[in-house]
Amino acid sequence: MKRKSQVPKAELRRVLSSLSIAQGKRARLWRLLYASGPANGTLMVLPLDQGLEHGPTDFFPNPPAVDTSYQVRLALEGGYSAIALGIGLAEKYLYEHAGEIPLILKLNGKTNIADDAEATSPAFATVEDAVRLGADAVGYTVYVGSPRQDAEIREYGRVRRDCERLGMPLVVWAYPRGRDIEAKGGKGSLYAQDYAARVAEELGADVVKLHEPAPEAGASPEPYRSLREDAPTRLRRVVRSAGRVMVLFSGGVKQDDDAAVLRKVKLYMECGATGVMFGRNMWLRPMDQALALTARVRSLLARYPR
Amino acid sequence: MKRKSQVPKAELRRVLSSLSIAQGKRARLWRLLYASGPANGTLMVLPLDQGLEHGPTDFFPNPPAVDTSYQVRLALEGGYSAIALGIGLAEKYLYEHAGEIPLILKLNGKTNIADDAEATSPAFATVEDAVRLGADAVGYTVYVGSPRQDAEIREYGRVRRDCERLGMPLVVWAYPRGRDIEAKGGKGSLYAQDYAARVAEELGADVVKLHEPAPEAGASPEPYRSLREDAPTRLRRVVRSAGRVMVLFSGGVKQDDDAAVLRKVKLYMECGATGVMFGRNMWLRPMDQALALTARVRSLLARYPR
Amino acid sequence: MKRKSQVPKAELRRVLSSLSIAQGKRARLWRLLYASGPANGTLMVLPLDQGLEHGPTDFFPNPPAVDTSYQVRLALEGGYSAIALGIGLAEKYLYEHAGEIPLILKLNGKTNIADDAEATSPAFATVEDAVRLGADAVGYTVYVGSPRQDAEIREYGRVRRDCERLGMPLVVWAYPRGRDIEAKGGKGSLYAQDYAARVAEELGADVVKLHEPAPEAGASPEPYRSLREDAPTRLRRVVRSAGRVMVLFSGGVKQDDDAAVLRKVKLYMECGATGVMFGRNMWLRPMDQALALTARVRSLLARYPR
Amino acid sequence: MKRKSQVPKAELRRVLSSLSIAQGKRARLWRLLYASGPANGTLMVLPLDQGLEHGPTDFFPNPPAVDTSYQVRLALEGGYSAIALGIGLAEKYLYEHAGEIPLILKLNGKTNIADDAEATSPAFATVEDAVRLGADAVGYTVYVGSPRQDAEIREYGRVRRDCERLGMPLVVWAYPRGRDIEAKGGKGSLYAQDYAARVAEELGADVVKLHEPAPEAGASPEPYRSLREDAPTRLRRVVRSAGRVMVLFSGGVKQDDDAAVLRKVKLYMECGATGVMFGRNMWLRPMDQALALTARVRSLLARYPR
Amino acid sequence: MKRKSQVPKAELRRVLSSLSIAQGKRARLWRLLYASGPANGTLMVLPLDQGLEHGPTDFFPNPPAVDTSYQVRLALEGGYSAIALGIGLAEKYLYEHAGEIPLILKLNGKTNIADDAEATSPAFATVEDAVRLGADAVGYTVYVGSPRQDAEIREYGRVRRDCERLGMPLVVWAYPRGRDIEAKGGKGSLYAQDYAARVAEELGADVVKLHEPAPEAGASPEPYRSLREDAPTRLRRVVRSAGRVMVLFSGGVKQDDDAAVLRKVKLYMECGATGVMFGRNMWLRPMDQALALTARVRSLLARYPR
Repeated sequence: MKRKSQVPKAELRRVLSSLSIAQGKRARLWRLLYASGPANGTLMVLPLDQGLEHGPTDFFPNPPAVDTSYQVRLALEGGYSAIALGIGLAEKYLYEHAGEIPLILKLNGKTNIADDAEATSPAFATVEDAVRLGADAVGYTVYVGSPRQDAEIREYGRVRRDCERLGMPLVVWAYPRGRDIEAKGGKGSLYAQDYAARVAEELGADVVKLHEPAPEAGASPEPYRSLREDAPTRLRRVVRSAGRVMVLFSGGVKQDDDAAVLRKVKLYMECGATGVMFGRNMWLRPMDQALALTARVRSLLARYPR
Repeated sequence: MKRKSQVPKAELRRVLSSLSIAQGKRARLWRLLYASGPANGTLMVLPLDQGLEHGPTDFFPNPPAVDTSYQVRLALEGGYSAIALGIGLAEKYLYEHAGEIPLILKLNGKTNIADDAEATSPAFATVEDAVRLGADAVGYTVYVGSPRQDAEIREYGRVRRDCERLGMPLVVWAYPRGRDIEAKGGKGSLYAQDYAARVAEELGADVVKLHEPAPEAGASPEPYRSLREDAPTRLRRVVRSAGRVMVLFSGGVKQDDDAAVLRKVKLYMECGATGVMFGRNMWLRPMDQALALTARVRSLLARYPR
Repeated sequence: MKRKSQVPKAELRRVLSSLSIAQGKRARLWRLLYASGPANGTLMVLPLDQGLEHGPTDFFPNPPAVDTSYQVRLALEGGYSAIALGIGLAEKYLYEHAGEIPLILKLNGKTNIADDAEATSPAFATVEDAVRLGADAVGYTVYVGSPRQDAEIREYGRVRRDCERLGMPLVVWAYPRGRDIEAKGGKGSLYAQDYAARVAEELGADVVKLHEPAPEAGASPEPYRSLREDAPTRLRRVVRSAGRVMVLFSGGVKQDDDAAVLRKVKLYMECGATGVMFGRNMWLRPMDQALALTARVRSLLARYPR
Repeated sequence: MKRKSQVPKAELRRVLSSLSIAQGKRARLWRLLYASGPANGTLMVLPLDQGLEHGPTDFFPNPPAVDTSYQVRLALEGGYSAIALGIGLAEKYLYEHAGEIPLILKLNGKTNIADDAEATSPAFATVEDAVRLGADAVGYTVYVGSPRQDAEIREYGRVRRDCERLGMPLVVWAYPRGRDIEAKGGKGSLYAQDYAARVAEELGADVVKLHEPAPEAGASPEPYRSLREDAPTRLRRVVRSAGRVMVLFSGGVKQDDDAAVLRKVKLYMECGATGVMFGRNMWLRPMDQALALTARVRSLLARYPR
Repeated sequence: MKRKSQVPKAELRRVLSSLSIAQGKRARLWRLLYASGPANGTLMVLPLDQGLEHGPTDFFPNPPAVDTSYQVRLALEGGYSAIALGIGLAEKYLYEHAGEIPLILKLNGKTNIADDAEATSPAFATVEDAVRLGADAVGYTVYVGSPRQDAEIREYGRVRRDCERLGMPLVVWAYPRGRDIEAKGGKGSLYAQDYAARVAEELGADVVKLHEPAPEAGASPEPYRSLREDAPTRLRRVVRSAGRVMVLFSGGVKQDDDAAVLRKVKLYMECGATGVMFGRNMWLRPMDQALALTARVRSLLARYPR
């Protein structure tokens, strides 16, 4: 698939060349943003860690997807910006395509067998593993607000320093989680997502993965509880709270209606997102449909150069 | 015992030569798969860690088995692919046969005196110990879904990196365990085993040890709860979920009927397993019977070259 | 903005040149005290970690403040002694002004999603990060009296040693917190603040950030419970308990009345404070008002050379 | 006291010369077994850690024993194989006799002020300390089955590796302990001691200290609950479960009747023990009686060359 | 103040020159015992960590004492053997007198805001800090019998090894503490203090700080519960349990009657103490009275050369 770099917006280019970004990190971010996928400063990432996070349950609607070759093929043929995988999948399925598509190595994860009241996500791979595998970024989940968040934030701190030392971009899955956020309106609320966006920025992420915030349902703290904002306003608020951290929105559970998916992408991009990280909404479709939808998302992103 | 290497299937050979496998790991896996035991890409492993995991209780049906010389003799004369031992047994009983049979050094373990509600298995040996003893792989238990799984996954991560650094294959005992999996149908369910298989793959195991999944009994989450699959279908599902990780099935408690054991092995191999790791089903038999059954299992594996 | 160094008081100068202060620490403290901001031995610090500590909630009264450029501009144009930021904001917003204003890199933090009964604040940046970014001090929160204070004090000890090794001044946010202080009169009491001041001194801080102590309300231990001291007496007591550690008072929630803010500053300085660290009271004002109030605070500090 | 080395039994000598034993460990074990104490492959160890484990309470029956010089004199004049001490006693009382008697440096310990429901024994000395003091072995307590056994087993693993690296024999105090073993028949049962023996072997001990197992009293798991074995049978079972790990039996609380003590020793040796580690049964006697009993134990051990 | 070394008792001198004491530790102990304070083998130490341990509360009876200059002046003019301070006070108040009086750097500490049911005292300074500051000893609190004592004993072990490596004497504040000792008669009982003395010896302290044991009040375990010993007998018992570890008794809460204080010191010395560590009983007196009492204590100690 042919790729053509476009000239990035002045602002983003300036950030990328700032003194606080190591040269290696700049090189890898450039590759993700301007030499891969839409190559116009947007990001279209295909993630696959659901087998660890939710079990094989997630693959039931599309059994071939249990074989990671499926996602690798989709990422390659669909022209994604990157594929996000843990170390096991990255080593066993990407070696035959090393260099053909950027890798975001996801460093931590957990099962969902225990509930999320005290969720914590331990790392089982390192930034050096990412370097060894030629990855262009690492991913790390922070369970924002979990009672055990201190263990995670300390580990995050070590990952962040390794990223700095090795010039590796850092993508934070900023997920509100735990009994306290449930008592305050739940993980999907605007309050929760807005807080998560800000946490990612203050912790020093380069890119943050968020969910589209839901309308407030009454249990969030003020002033959120009283807000009556529509979807675009909520999205813009969250993107603003992430500041200079690039925002990717996830797709969550599969949406069968292609048009609805595309409307979502359009909405996210118009509200300032840098891109999307859609997993199940892509690889739970039959390959031809997945490729077709991917192509339409790509075209859509092409209209929002950054 | 004479051994003859067979030509491995193209696919497995390709994985073994992939860029993501260190040369040392490839060499050791080759030795296990094609230069030991059935030597045709299958694995027949004799494990012995039950004395630590369950206490001497397990040896009561066959008292001589409390002397590890028994298992060592069985492994050698029976022509197993490898024997799996912890550091204490490996150092005290294998030195006189170093090199005669591959060793899988089991790194962690625990007693069963406390119940398994918060099971966690601490390491007391290292990958460097395995190198020093000339082992061809290490073993590590992950209690999938235990409330304390984060400690284990972090330790696993360090073991995995040492394996990478030292070219050592990593065999994961992927055991669903803890109060949460009990509440969701128990450790033996298809749901539990299928999840464990996937966890091993995403964590980066080379080989995974699983139990044959039981039929669903009603407490598993959907869609498993509603599945009505027969044994072969369940086994194939689990093997598929393990992806490119080689699957060994364990024997569990002793089965007195030799024919039944062989039917199990045949079933496992036809469903895609790489082999078996039978302990009590072998070394709880009198030596002559154990050797006879071993020979029949070996012949059976010879019919499923990988 | 022109700055003129004034001659510091003999005592402070003596401390700064004492044998126990590394040369680098002396150089950086001098820069903060006599070559930046009021430049007369007082400190006027603009902090911004509320987005992490409280969520974007804090920015609602003045939406532009969610963009850290706002605070950076205020710090620069207002002529502050320093701006206090976490690693994420420091790297993403200060690079274009590196050197123009001293940075206090805040090393630890947490969200307020879980309550503070067992508050603990994990570090996600290091003293070496501060050196790399050209910071002139680091900040570290100690939750004085929290049931988990041991984890924090141990981590603090490592930060302190790195500060010693690298010549970096150490500013301690000494915050009484947790269920036990709540049972003893709350975090704002004279008892709590006085204890916090002393803790900072015994732990080895160079500067301590405290809150103005409230009058005793009955639940503090004796002799505090029976004290009936007015505000200046309480403040002087706290400053005295901090000993040779310089005290900054924080502003807490926004106070709309400029004159009231200035009365507070005057009171603090007359009671021996080295300066103030006002966040929301500054950056929640529209820029022109914030700059105007800043100028008046600066003038006020100019009357209290140290 | 003159010592004469005897020729060890072929089997033990073979183990001592095995490839898996570092040369230094072999040298030190040889010294303990064949150049000290009975010097015939048996061990007679005088332990003293009761002051830490139980408090000075233990010394009340024989007040002079609170002065460690008492035990040192007894060990020297009595011709013991070794004295087992923690770092404090070893440094303060053995320096004037360094080299005259082997030292087993006990690395961990705890008080009995808290109950043993979650017993855990932290290390406060290292294998390097043992090397520095010229010790011939280290001792480490493992509380088999305690809910916190994972912390201990991890620490044990580090001790074991240091022993390997430095050629230091490792004596494990394998003590069943904690609420779970209490619920299963108690720490003194055959079930508990038999399990402990096996744990020591699988963890890689060189020598294990056990208590004589009591008859089963009904709460142990099957098959132990139904066993009706006499004392010698129980002892032989435990020794067999320890495999190639040398077994020392402890004396426990003081037994006033010398003849009863000697009957115990004879029983242990006939059941395969390598020796005894009697503390209170020795040093709670007046010196002349302690020396007399010691001499009779020595003579007895002389009749069981290993 | 002129100091004259006296010849130490033969026994103590022998311990100081023993093989197990590093040369640097001997040099520093000699300085404390024979070249400072009474300089006759006794110790008169002025401690100040109460501001951290109890809050500024302790200074209310004598407000000038909140300024550490007060204690430094008292220590210097009073001719103490040493002053014991944490890192914050040592760095900020002793630099102008470095070398004029020995420093015991207290390494750990905590607040008393949470109760002591699970007391634990984290370190925030190191033995290397002590070396850097020219200290002649370090101090470390062990909360004997606390449910969390394992964390402290492990940390203590690291401190002890650093002391060994750097030749630094180690003073242990051996304080029985926690819910379990409260249930067994409380921290002040003879049982508790006697146990603490022994713990310090077995852990390897050089000097131990204890409290004078109270009479038994009924809840201690036997045989203590039944003891009816007078104060001198109790003190001698505790000193004996500390073995070759030098014992300092603390003064505890302030005693207004000078004569009573002196009677205590005389009693302690006659019962075998090496000296006293009195804080509040000294620095809560007006300076002239404190100096006068100090002089009388010094004279008293002069009558008990060691």
